[in-house]
Amino acid sequence: MFNAVGFAARHSRVLFASEEKGAPSFPSSASIPLAELRYMQGFPAPADKQINRSDYLVEYPKVRWAFQHMRELIPSRQIGRGHGPVTALPASADISAKIDALSIEMLDGENISFAEFLDRSYADAMLIIHQGKVVYESYPNMADAQSPHMLWSVTKSFTGLIANMLSLEGLLDLNSQVTEHIPELAESGWAGATVQQVLDMTADVKYSEVYADGTSDVIHYGLSAGITQSSQWTGPTSLYDYLPSVGAARGHGEHFAYRTVHTEVLGWIIRRVSGKELAQQINERIWSKLGAEQDAYILLDAKGTEWAGAGLNASLRDLGRFAEMLRLGGHYNGQQVVPAELITEIQRGGDRDAFARFGRKGMDGYSYHNQWWVSHNPDEVFEAMGVHGQLVHVNSAAELSLVRLGSHPVASNDFTYEMTRRVTSALADLLRG
Amino acid sequence: MFNAVGFAARHSRVLFASEEKGAPSFPSSASIPLAELRYMQGFPAPADKQINRSDYLVEYPKVRWAFQHMRELIPSRQIGRGHGPVTALPASADISAKIDALSIEMLDGENISFAEFLDRSYADAMLIIHQGKVVYESYPNMADAQSPHMLWSVTKSFTGLIANMLSLEGLLDLNSQVTEHIPELAESGWAGATVQQVLDMTADVKYSEVYADGTSDVIHYGLSAGITQSSQWTGPTSLYDYLPSVGAARGHGEHFAYRTVHTEVLGWIIRRVSGKELAQQINERIWSKLGAEQDAYILLDAKGTEWAGAGLNASLRDLGRFAEMLRLGGHYNGQQVVPAELITEIQRGGDRDAFARFGRKGMDGYSYHNQWWVSHNPDEVFEAMGVHGQLVHVNSAAELSLVRLGSHPVASNDFTYEMTRRVTSALADLLRG
Repeated sequence: MFNAVGFAARHSRVLFASEEKGAPSFPSSASIPLAELRYMQGFPAPADKQINRSDYLVEYPKVRWAFQHMRELIPSRQIGRGHGPVTALPASADISAKIDALSIEMLDGENISFAEFLDRSYADAMLIIHQGKVVYESYPNMADAQSPHMLWSVTKSFTGLIANMLSLEGLLDLNSQVTEHIPELAESGWAGATVQQVLDMTADVKYSEVYADGTSDVIHYGLSAGITQSSQWTGPTSLYDYLPSVGAARGHGEHFAYRTVHTEVLGWIIRRVSGKELAQQINERIWSKLGAEQDAYILLDAKGTEWAGAGLNASLRDLGRFAEMLRLGGHYNGQQVVPAELITEIQRGGDRDAFARFGRKGMDGYSYHNQWWVSHNPDEVFEAMGVHGQLVHVNSAAELSLVRLGSHPVASNDFTYEMTRRVTSALADLLRG
Repeated sequence: MFNAVGFAARHSRVLFASEEKGAPSFPSSASIPLAELRYMQGFPAPADKQINRSDYLVEYPKVRWAFQHMRELIPSRQIGRGHGPVTALPASADISAKIDALSIEMLDGENISFAEFLDRSYADAMLIIHQGKVVYESYPNMADAQSPHMLWSVTKSFTGLIANMLSLEGLLDLNSQVTEHIPELAESGWAGATVQQVLDMTADVKYSEVYADGTSDVIHYGLSAGITQSSQWTGPTSLYDYLPSVGAARGHGEHFAYRTVHTEVLGWIIRRVSGKELAQQINERIWSKLGAEQDAYILLDAKGTEWAGAGLNASLRDLGRFAEMLRLGGHYNGQQVVPAELITEIQRGGDRDAFARFGRKGMDGYSYHNQWWVSHNPDEVFEAMGVHGQLVHVNSAAELSLVRLGSHPVASNDFTYEMTRRVTSALADLLRG
C-alpha cells in the first residue's frame, strides 16, 4: 500500500509548505527567472536541471518551467482553435507605466506598486484589457509568450460552462442525481447528490484537499490521475478507477468545500450525457469560436481521461479573448458563444454562508457557483482561479478583463489572494478614471 | 533483466508476424474501419476497446486508432505552424474516378485497381497533387481528416534535411566524426563513424532492426525511448542512456543497414551543434514556412528527448505542402524553404551496391542517402517512408506529389512496397497523359 505519510515526508518541500506553519521563506520571483534557471537546457540537461513527471511539482521552482511544458511531461488532447481568422486584440495607448506605478495598500498597511505585486505573486504573464483594448501585457517569466500555460483549476470554470450549456439545451437536468448518470458512483460519497450540488461543490464527500498535507486525498487523486508519479503508488491509475473509491461525508447541500474531484465527476457526467469528450465540447462550444491564436490542450490520465478539474493549458492572449467574451455577456467574435443568462446566473452566486464557513483567506463575501468564484462586490466581479496564481478576472462594470498566469511556490491561492483582490480593485478604480 | 524472448512470445502477435513465416492472414482494411472498431468510445471504453501505451503496437488493429492519437498516449512537443495564412491547395478537375479505376499489374500478374491498392495497403488517407492541384484526396480510415498522423520513419527525412541545412551553413561538417560532437558515444559502435555515414546509414553498429523478432535491438530501443512500455523492462529509460550502449559491428562506410538509432544519433548531433531542440529546428526552418493548416508535433522519451528517427506527427494536407515544396526545388509559399542543392543532392543518391546487398523487397535499384529513399528511376523519384505504410513520394519529372498515411498490420514496408511502386509508376504515366 502507498505510504502517503512517507511520500509527504520525502516530497513535501516548498510546494507543500503552508503559510500557517509560520513564514517559510521563498526565493523571490525576480531571483528565479526561467532563463537563469536553465532547466532542460543541454542535450541532455545536467541532472539537477532535468524535470520529469515525478519531480516537477515537488521540487520548487521546477514549476516555473513545467507549467509552460506540460504536454512534454504528460499525454494531452488537442483543443483546436479551428480555422477562422484570429480575433484582433487591439492595443490601447500604453498606460503600462501608469499601471506599474499604482500604489496599492496591503492588509498590513504597506503600500506596494503593481510591478511589485507581479513579483510577489510570481506572475509568469499578465494581460489587462480595458474597453476591449490591451492596456497592459507583460511576460515576466515566459520563454515564449505564445506557450499554452498550465491552468489548473481555471479548467473547472470551463467545465462548469459546458455543463450549464448542456443544461440550457435540455440535455442535463441539474436537479438530477449524479448516480443517475454515473451508476458506478452508487456506492461512493456522491450517492444522493445532485448535479447542481456538484457544480457548487456543496455535494459533500469524504475527501480532503490540502496540498500541504501529504496524507490528503488530493495527493491520492493526483497519483491516480497521473498528475504526479511515484514508483511506490499502488492505488488506482485512472480517474474512473479512483472516483468510485471516494466515500461519504456529512450530507449534501449544506456545506461548501472546494474539491477537485467534484469537477472530475462533472466531466464524467458531461461525457456520459453528451457522448463527447470534454475536449471536443470545449473545442466546439468555446475555443473554436473565440478566434484564438493557439490550440489549447487538456492533460490525460493513463486511460485517456481528461483532468476535467485541472488539465487545461492555454496561452495568455487566448485567455484574454475568453475573458472578454464573458465580459461582453458571452457575445464575441461576431457570435453568441456562451448564453448571456449563464453569465448572469454565475454572478447570482452560490451559498455565501456556506462559503464563509469554509473559510477562504482574502475572499470574504465571496461564494462559489457553477464552478466560478463570485465576488458579490458592487462590480459583480467573477473569477476562475488556478492553484499557483492563474487568474481569469471579469469585471463587466469596469469594462475590465484581466488574466494572470503564475507559478508561485505555495499550492494555494491563499498565498496571494488577499493581495490580488486589493490590486484588481485598485486597477478597476484607476481605469474608471 | 528484461526477457526479450518472453516479451516477444507474449506480444508478437499480428504486428510482428513476418511474411517470410508464410502468409499469415490479416483482416482486410475494409473490414476494420475505425468507426466500427469503436476504440476508446464510452466513458470509460469497455476493457477490450481501451488502448494504452503498452498494447497499441502489439494488438492489431489498435494502431488504426493509435496512429491518429499518439499525443494522447505519449508526451509530445509542439511544432507550431506559425501565424501566417494557410497556403491554398487548389483542387483540380475531379479525376478521382479515373484514378480509382486505374488497372495496375502486380508482380504475380494480377491486375488491381487503385481503390483496391488503397485497401490492400491499409491506407488511412491518400493525397495526390498534380501540377500543384489536388487530383485525389481520400480518407478511408480517418476519424478527422485534419488529425496529425503518426509518421514513424518519415521523421528521419525531416531530420536529414535539418542536418544538411546545418551543413550548408557551415555549422556541421559532414565528414567530422560523430564522437567529436557526442563524446558520450566514444565507447559505442559509432566510434570512428562520420556524420555522413550516419546520414546514409553506412555507419555500422551492432544492432538488429527486425520488428518480427522480439529479441531484436529495435525492441530495446523502443522500450528505452518509451515507444512502447513493459513493466518488465529494467533497461535504460531514455535515448541518451540507451544509445551509448549500442556496440560496434563490421566497419563503417561499406555496408548499408537501415537503423533507426542512426537517426537518433543524428538528432543528438543536431541539438549539440545548433543548441536547439529538433522540434524548434523543424518549426523554424520548415513547418512555419509552409503555410500549414495544423501544428505538427514530435513524441518524447521520459527525459523529454525527441524521437528524431520516428516521432513526428502531421496531417495529410500539410505533408502534401511539404512534398510540394520538395517537388518545386525547395521553393514554396513565396520563399526558398530548403536549398535546391540539397534536393539535387538527395536525388544523387547513396551507395546502390551496398543498398542492393542489404536487400529490400520491392526496392531494386534504390539507394538511401541523407535519410531519404532514392529511386534512381528516370523520374528521379525520392521518398520518405514510415513503417506502417506512411509515404511521401516526390516526382518532379511528372509534377506529382503523393502522400499516404497508413496503418497496415506488418511493421515493414516490405509488406506493400512492391505494390506501391507499381502503382505510383502507373499513376505518373496516367497523369503525364
